[in-house]
Amino acid sequence: MIDFIHPAPVGSVFKSRMEVKAAGLHKHLQAGIDFDKDRIAEAIVVSGGYSEDQDFGDRIIYTGQGGQSAPGSGIQVSDQKIERGNLALVNAELTGTPVRVIRGAGGDKRFSPASGYRYDGFYEITQHWFEFSKDGPSVVRFELIRCEDEVLTPTNGGARSQVLPPPQGVVSPRRISKSSSSQPARDPRVPAWIKGLYRDECQICWKVIRLRDSTYSEGAHIQGLGFPHYGPDIVENMLCLCPNCHTRFDKGALYVTENLKAAVDVVTGDKAMLRVRGDHEINPEYVVHHRVHVAGIR
Amino acid sequence: MIDFIHPAPVGSVFKSRMEVKAAGLHKHLQAGIDFDKDRIAEAIVVSGGYSEDQDFGDRIIYTGQGGQSAPGSGIQVSDQKIERGNLALVNAELTGTPVRVIRGAGGDKRFSPASGYRYDGFYEITQHWFEFSKDGPSVVRFELIRCEDEVLTPTNGGARSQVLPPPQGVVSPRRISKSSSSQPARDPRVPAWIKGLYRDECQICWKVIRLRDSTYSEGAHIQGLGFPHYGPDIVENMLCLCPNCHTRFDKGALYVTENLKAAVDVVTGDKAMLRVRGDHEINPEYVVHHRVHVAGIR
Repeated sequence: MIDFIHPAPVGSVFKSRMEVKAAGLHKHLQAGIDFDKDRIAEAIVVSGGYSEDQDFGDRIIYTGQGGQSAPGSGIQVSDQKIERGNLALVNAELTGTPVRVIRGAGGDKRFSPASGYRYDGFYEITQHWFEFSKDGPSVVRFELIRCEDEVLTPTNGGARSQVLPPPQGVVSPRRISKSSSSQPARDPRVPAWIKGLYRDECQICWKVIRLRDSTYSEGAHIQGLGFPHYGPDIVENMLCLCPNCHTRFDKGALYVTENLKAAVDVVTGDKAMLRVRGDHEINPEYVVHHRVHVAGIR
Repeated sequence: MIDFIHPAPVGSVFKSRMEVKAAGLHKHLQAGIDFDKDRIAEAIVVSGGYSEDQDFGDRIIYTGQGGQSAPGSGIQVSDQKIERGNLALVNAELTGTPVRVIRGAGGDKRFSPASGYRYDGFYEITQHWFEFSKDGPSVVRFELIRCEDEVLTPTNGGARSQVLPPPQGVVSPRRISKSSSSQPARDPRVPAWIKGLYRDECQICWKVIRLRDSTYSEGAHIQGLGFPHYGPDIVENMLCLCPNCHTRFDKGALYVTENLKAAVDVVTGDKAMLRVRGDHEINPEYVVHHRVHVAGIR
């Protein structure tokens, strides 16, 4: 079971933003979006500042910041941009870092506290998009989905500017039952650490996928997490790959040599040097499992 | 609602393989795997030929063919390879083409007919892998999951060697409720047609992703299918992209010009010529939606 820590118990109620801040939930007294020094969002306050926000309890549609005639005026005079808090929310989305949600009394009556503020745990940012506000200029909107029962200690998620010790991960991921096949629960800190370590550079083709406001890579399990491979969800079983190499690796068109020096093209036999950073201890056992059972090479 | 057609009603029972063949369900009288001229699997018979097969009703673990001392001997003397029927099942997996499942009396008693054969509808091949058989040599195993209530007319799925008229698709895809957010039901014939038309060449970077036994691309919806975009699941709203370009397109790092001539890098402004085949009528309305609401460019 993944061990996540909340700065305060979920459901805690606070009289003021000052108390919310003192509890370590959100650093600011006015701004809605709190982020860390890597500009990854850590927490938001949902309190009805934007009339177009929508709260469904387990799911929130949250409007970004900026472009109003005055903060809190509710009048949109220019397009919102992916900058400041909005950029931090996009970064949290891209790094898979859940954010703390604090609801204030001004929000949707069905889900907000009668007075003051309530800490409601971690939510994952699933997507963002641009919409025209009722005043004309466009706003950025974010969809947030409540994390089931697992959440994160925020100081360890998606760190980019320094190498922290790797998250412990989980050797036998708990299965979340989903329709006919069961999905293992993943610890988002594991890919976040790997992707941060390589700064999104693919270990096989060395390419960095550029997005608008950031770069992108995927944390690829070497021995697959689910049926029938049942690999562990730990950094020793993960590579940082671009989507193209990830697809080819997962489909057995590429495998990694047991000495961890190269990725081999199964069809041509071509080898590409595998980039492995000193802090990243890949376990060759997983590489052999993948080669034999996915690439079909004895 | 997607309109799928079965060659015979699901649940039909037949006395012999000859009758199964006459019903248009499976062309062969002995072989377990039936495939079309493009070597994409169309149907399998599950009847206990391999002791290591496992039947869970809605989910089947099916062993590939080959490598036995004699057909049906049950003694594995050499490694199975991704060839013939096994290759056809891999191709069905990669093109998202569901296969018809016919269960025979020899299979798992809980799910098999008491005598003869029964048509059990379409199953999707979710993955394949290599396992050591009890005799030592490795076998290929496939996981199949029953298609919910939608299935395919097989003559239109994943065709590669000629351009068939595009599948009709569905303008307002039915939502399948899944946990908190709802997923639209997709018609797998739509991406299969697009990917076949372009022979897996990415329309933006012109790259073909090679796998071991085939090539790979993704059918990318231009105006997203789910919340908040609610685009239609039709070929006019789809591009054939490699996973890297698909990611950059979905995240708004690339957009397509309204005249459909180019893909533009949002950060650098660089343009790449968009390859559009004559048979592929992209609707510029969807391209504009993507540019404005995903890339955030007015």
